[in-house]
Amino acid sequence: MSVKVGVVGGGQLARMMIAPAVEIGIELSVLAEEPDMAAGLAATAVGDYRDAQTVLDFARGVDVVTFDHEHVPQDVLAALVAAGVAVHPGPGPLAFAQDKLRMRERLEALGMPQPEWAAVADAAQLQAFLDAHGGRAVVKTPRGGYDGKGVRVVRAAAEAADWLGALGEGDRLLVEELVDFVRELAQQVARRPSGELRAYPVVETVQRGGVCAEVIAPAPHARERLPEVAAGIGSAIAEGLGVTGMLAVELFETTDDRLLVNELAMRPHNSGHWSQEGAITGQFEQHLRAVLDLPLGDPSPRAPWSVMVNILGGPTEDALTDRLPRVFAEHPAVKVHTYGKAPRPGRKVGHVNATGDDLDAVVYEARAAAALFAD
Amino acid sequence: MSVKVGVVGGGQLARMMIAPAVEIGIELSVLAEEPDMAAGLAATAVGDYRDAQTVLDFARGVDVVTFDHEHVPQDVLAALVAAGVAVHPGPGPLAFAQDKLRMRERLEALGMPQPEWAAVADAAQLQAFLDAHGGRAVVKTPRGGYDGKGVRVVRAAAEAADWLGALGEGDRLLVEELVDFVRELAQQVARRPSGELRAYPVVETVQRGGVCAEVIAPAPHARERLPEVAAGIGSAIAEGLGVTGMLAVELFETTDDRLLVNELAMRPHNSGHWSQEGAITGQFEQHLRAVLDLPLGDPSPRAPWSVMVNILGGPTEDALTDRLPRVFAEHPAVKVHTYGKAPRPGRKVGHVNATGDDLDAVVYEARAAAALFAD
Repeated sequence: MSVKVGVVGGGQLARMMIAPAVEIGIELSVLAEEPDMAAGLAATAVGDYRDAQTVLDFARGVDVVTFDHEHVPQDVLAALVAAGVAVHPGPGPLAFAQDKLRMRERLEALGMPQPEWAAVADAAQLQAFLDAHGGRAVVKTPRGGYDGKGVRVVRAAAEAADWLGALGEGDRLLVEELVDFVRELAQQVARRPSGELRAYPVVETVQRGGVCAEVIAPAPHARERLPEVAAGIGSAIAEGLGVTGMLAVELFETTDDRLLVNELAMRPHNSGHWSQEGAITGQFEQHLRAVLDLPLGDPSPRAPWSVMVNILGGPTEDALTDRLPRVFAEHPAVKVHTYGKAPRPGRKVGHVNATGDDLDAVVYEARAAAALFAD
Repeated sequence: MSVKVGVVGGGQLARMMIAPAVEIGIELSVLAEEPDMAAGLAATAVGDYRDAQTVLDFARGVDVVTFDHEHVPQDVLAALVAAGVAVHPGPGPLAFAQDKLRMRERLEALGMPQPEWAAVADAAQLQAFLDAHGGRAVVKTPRGGYDGKGVRVVRAAAEAADWLGALGEGDRLLVEELVDFVRELAQQVARRPSGELRAYPVVETVQRGGVCAEVIAPAPHARERLPEVAAGIGSAIAEGLGVTGMLAVELFETTDDRLLVNELAMRPHNSGHWSQEGAITGQFEQHLRAVLDLPLGDPSPRAPWSVMVNILGGPTEDALTDRLPRVFAEHPAVKVHTYGKAPRPGRKVGHVNATGDDLDAVVYEARAAAALFAD
């Protein structure tokens, strides 16, 4: 059977596939953007993922190619497929992750609940949307955004003048209503090529400055049918878009008790890091199983509550390891995950996971441990 | 702080340190005996651990040297210490793991409960021990045995004639009473150089043909004070011998309700593989913390019951991966660990872990999954 997985991209998501790959006995290789990246231990090549020949050379000898991110260009993906390489997720679903306008169109066709949205080509169209939606809206560049980049809340068309001015012939911006939400949720689903699908419990995500700061699994105080509805949305999108591997659906829970799809990610996702210790099958093992078309593992939680808190870049390169003694001494039950990345302010350089029976205690443990890395 | 750990030996124990090393952000390097060993992913050197220069070269640049096995000769260990390398466990405690006669002498001095034993130099001395112990005894070569090798049950001195004949001047064999035990247990303890000590729950181990076949954690049906007594024995030995890192104490539970020390292992141990998913801090992470003198993690179980069943070598090289689809499909909650080793009959090539609330169900899951690899 196929047991060699090649991952394009050497970031922390590729890094966190190393542990389950070693456990199950999967040979993992990584095409890293630079030497000494987070997934450097498994790097077999360093090169530009936008260059088809580089990626084709890397893919030689692996059974499946998958990804640390969704940025591999469609022409490179097409070259892989043409060369007979199994690519999961495939170019089709990735096109929706790479273009938020196409994603909105497709989700609408699938009948998925989403914020009101429009494609706008000029200031007049944007202003018309603003006028129809209380004078506020979220403008997004369809391509290239992540972690809050390429996303802007505007109250007048002029505030997006730079983006509008840069649009090429036929290009449009995505504009969405500013949703009145009580909180953000995330639904993860694993799907493998032969169709099997497994939904994780829906989680609550806390964003700060456009970056995921904290995740509580499962989402507390969930209304009766919310978990079922969220899992249904996740499953319908995975099937409707033909996603293989892990899919994360970011959701708004509105003040009027609706769930609306915010963003999609077709890879392991920050909202699922809790599952490394918190679920029977962590999302990184599940992703490897899924892209290899192996039967999926049990996504059930191991404990009533799991909490993940991100560690955002500290001041010095050794800050993380310097703090380990104190974190370990004060929080012997917290699990520390670091990414081997040089810290920069606001950069995700690691996370901590905690699990337990009492949510207050688990949240406290995870926050307190993460805070020791940041102070 | 120190974050580079060098492991001498490229077997499965070194391999299973890779996952926690990546998680915490410890740089792990391995001196492997051969290319493509179990821990090959982390191998930075291939060479003979009995050669001092090879090991010294390997140790350059790491902060701590630790081990996949206890077989590194004392002169090599002494050379490391003389060169200023931190070695954990150190040559002192390792000498007891390397020589079962010295171990028995030292445990006697510490007042530890053990089988009756003697050092015998010739057939007459062995026969005298046999006559005094019901005509049966276990004869052991003090050095070089593992997994049942170098151990023999005899009913007459003649049955050890080959070993007796091979003894050099001053050499002796170890002879021990054949203990009437109801079962075997194992107590693991982690101890770090600055003295902190953490005991895992005592577990039941099932041996077949001298090889560990199955482990149940914690040991079921334990008499009231048994866990406390076992932890006390483990802690006393770790402190008395100055062990750093993981220590496993194999114990007999006798028909008259005593605990007797059978063997010691100064490294992560097969009896602790359950802890990878079954404990908050698995033994491989704990070993790394301990040898780096970092505060130890919580060894508490994550679930009421954990069961580990070894996978013993199948007929073909690809047998393990060929069976994964069926194992995953039928046992979605079982965790599979493989060692990347070419299967040979009876060789440990992997294990499965299962956890849960109901011991019967957990034992069934683990046994059934492991059996799929073996059939």
